[in-house]
Amino acid sequence: MTEELRSIRWTGTAVRIIDQTALPHTLSYLDIEDVDGLVGAIRRLAVRGAPALGAAGALGVVLAMRQAGREGWAADRLAEEIGRLRVARPTASNLAWAVDQVEPLVAEGEAVVLEAALRVVADDEAANREIGRRGADWILERVARRPVRVLTHCNAGLLATTAWGSALGVVRELRDRGQIGLVYVDETRPLLQGARLTAWELEQESIPHLVQVDAAAASTILAGKVDVAIIGADRIAANGDTANKIGSLGVAIACHYAGIPFVVAAPESTVDLGTPTGQGIPIEMRDASEVVSWLGVPTAPASSGAHNPAFDVTPAGLVSVLVTERRTVEPAKGERPEQRPVPAAS
Amino acid sequence: MTEELRSIRWTGTAVRIIDQTALPHTLSYLDIEDVDGLVGAIRRLAVRGAPALGAAGALGVVLAMRQAGREGWAADRLAEEIGRLRVARPTASNLAWAVDQVEPLVAEGEAVVLEAALRVVADDEAANREIGRRGADWILERVARRPVRVLTHCNAGLLATTAWGSALGVVRELRDRGQIGLVYVDETRPLLQGARLTAWELEQESIPHLVQVDAAAASTILAGKVDVAIIGADRIAANGDTANKIGSLGVAIACHYAGIPFVVAAPESTVDLGTPTGQGIPIEMRDASEVVSWLGVPTAPASSGAHNPAFDVTPAGLVSVLVTERRTVEPAKGERPEQRPVPAAS
Repeated sequence: MTEELRSIRWTGTAVRIIDQTALPHTLSYLDIEDVDGLVGAIRRLAVRGAPALGAAGALGVVLAMRQAGREGWAADRLAEEIGRLRVARPTASNLAWAVDQVEPLVAEGEAVVLEAALRVVADDEAANREIGRRGADWILERVARRPVRVLTHCNAGLLATTAWGSALGVVRELRDRGQIGLVYVDETRPLLQGARLTAWELEQESIPHLVQVDAAAASTILAGKVDVAIIGADRIAANGDTANKIGSLGVAIACHYAGIPFVVAAPESTVDLGTPTGQGIPIEMRDASEVVSWLGVPTAPASSGAHNPAFDVTPAGLVSVLVTERRTVEPAKGERPEQRPVPAAS
Repeated sequence: MTEELRSIRWTGTAVRIIDQTALPHTLSYLDIEDVDGLVGAIRRLAVRGAPALGAAGALGVVLAMRQAGREGWAADRLAEEIGRLRVARPTASNLAWAVDQVEPLVAEGEAVVLEAALRVVADDEAANREIGRRGADWILERVARRPVRVLTHCNAGLLATTAWGSALGVVRELRDRGQIGLVYVDETRPLLQGARLTAWELEQESIPHLVQVDAAAASTILAGKVDVAIIGADRIAANGDTANKIGSLGVAIACHYAGIPFVVAAPESTVDLGTPTGQGIPIEMRDASEVVSWLGVPTAPASSGAHNPAFDVTPAGLVSVLVTERRTVEPAKGERPEQRPVPAAS
């Protein structure tokens, strides 16, 4: 059934996204027809997840061109609006990457840009399916226990991509091979992408799972309740340092301490060879209100501030394997994304 | 101003507790006059924290005796009700310890039991002040940076004890010595004791602090933003394994990885020499609804279950120091609570 779900697609006149802020209660769609609407949807995380942001960026250039036509923008205004889209969120490399894929084609007209943008979307789905196969192969070769019990953090599922999912793509592939056991889902404060989105995806597919507070991850791992942690990524530096949702680092350290693999599943578009190490990855700081209030009700004294980084950086030495659609790289063994030539796409 | 606050005290006719479920919005008190009321308050965490539970247990025996008089209970009914109180929550050793301190005196009459119970309460405050001094000494000898920047998890403050606090007692002592910097407060899901209670205590005393999601602890620690983590404990096994609020283990592993001290501050009544290792500490499993709903609103799909352990166990090897009112023990260096004779109380 989830085969038909698409987090983001082109309707012919609009970018149609699943409104992820309404899940798990309501599956609703938003049709977005201008740059402001798309930038707003990205900022409030109605569409989120690095590969889905890539698709939004590519299709957003089409929207911007149409809006330019409707509203009579000059070329510099169009470039400015595309630039605004490119930096709507700073950490994921895919957003800027995808804009950069299609923006050079603007002079060739909307049809050419649309074709390129749709290719970004289609390529992401193909990439996710290949990531699932490669990730499942890697895990089944190294983890003895059957079925495989997994811990995941945040949402790197079909909602975070265009379809299938990266980390959850590996889970779906393991399920298809009859090898998936219980999945522990970190709820992922402050915005609960785990409880709201990952649990919803797993529930749609009847994959057995339990939601837990993020703070339970270490004890679940050390108690031997899971065999592997699988997460997505927002940006991977040239040395293998990996930025992902806040809390991923704690999961990685616990896996390292417990001696189980920490698997990062992400498309090549997440690898940013222009950023040498994690030190160079900009970390989005979000509003304190996400932490110190809930459904509008304060959870802390009114005068208490909050420290609210949206992402953390896991050092390469803690990443057992980085699985993309083209390769597996094992940073914990000293392999670096920049040191291995990327095989040509098959 | 907080000098006057008491999480729990005897009014002459009732056990008066601060209703911790109403904080940080409202500072309100509950006067409890029977066993059912006290057991209910303990279970829903209106009174919580291992040393405060000890005080509740001791004073609860007095309540049970008065209720026995009012309602004409036979001795076996009284013993049964005291037994129910003793196990109202399973993990903290202090509750059972305190009941065991006063129950043998029941035959000597209410006045004798009340005197013993009030001594448990008074001793806890004295213990906390001494823990604060010893903890501050230990930290200031080993941490070079001034002022000292601290991370804490859950609430081991005056609300968790009878006054002053264990972990926050160390923070208060550092403040009194002019050596406290910024305190990072883990919000402590699912019940937010950090955001609601610890931030409230720090705000009362104008100690600078920032609330963060629990999942941010690892990045805060690895980024060098704090010099030491200080937490309380619910039960310490004979070998130094320490049970505390879920998430403490993740903090400990991150401190270990980053090479900063992980300090456990707790009274001797928390040390349970009858439990050889952490394997023997019963971990309370709480209702899934604490995780998958918030203020009555579901945060996950209706069919999603939750894994909700209230505590985790940090292995002794990750505990840099255990500070009690009588001694410091360094489990990470191989010292064990059972191997060092407890110096007599001064």
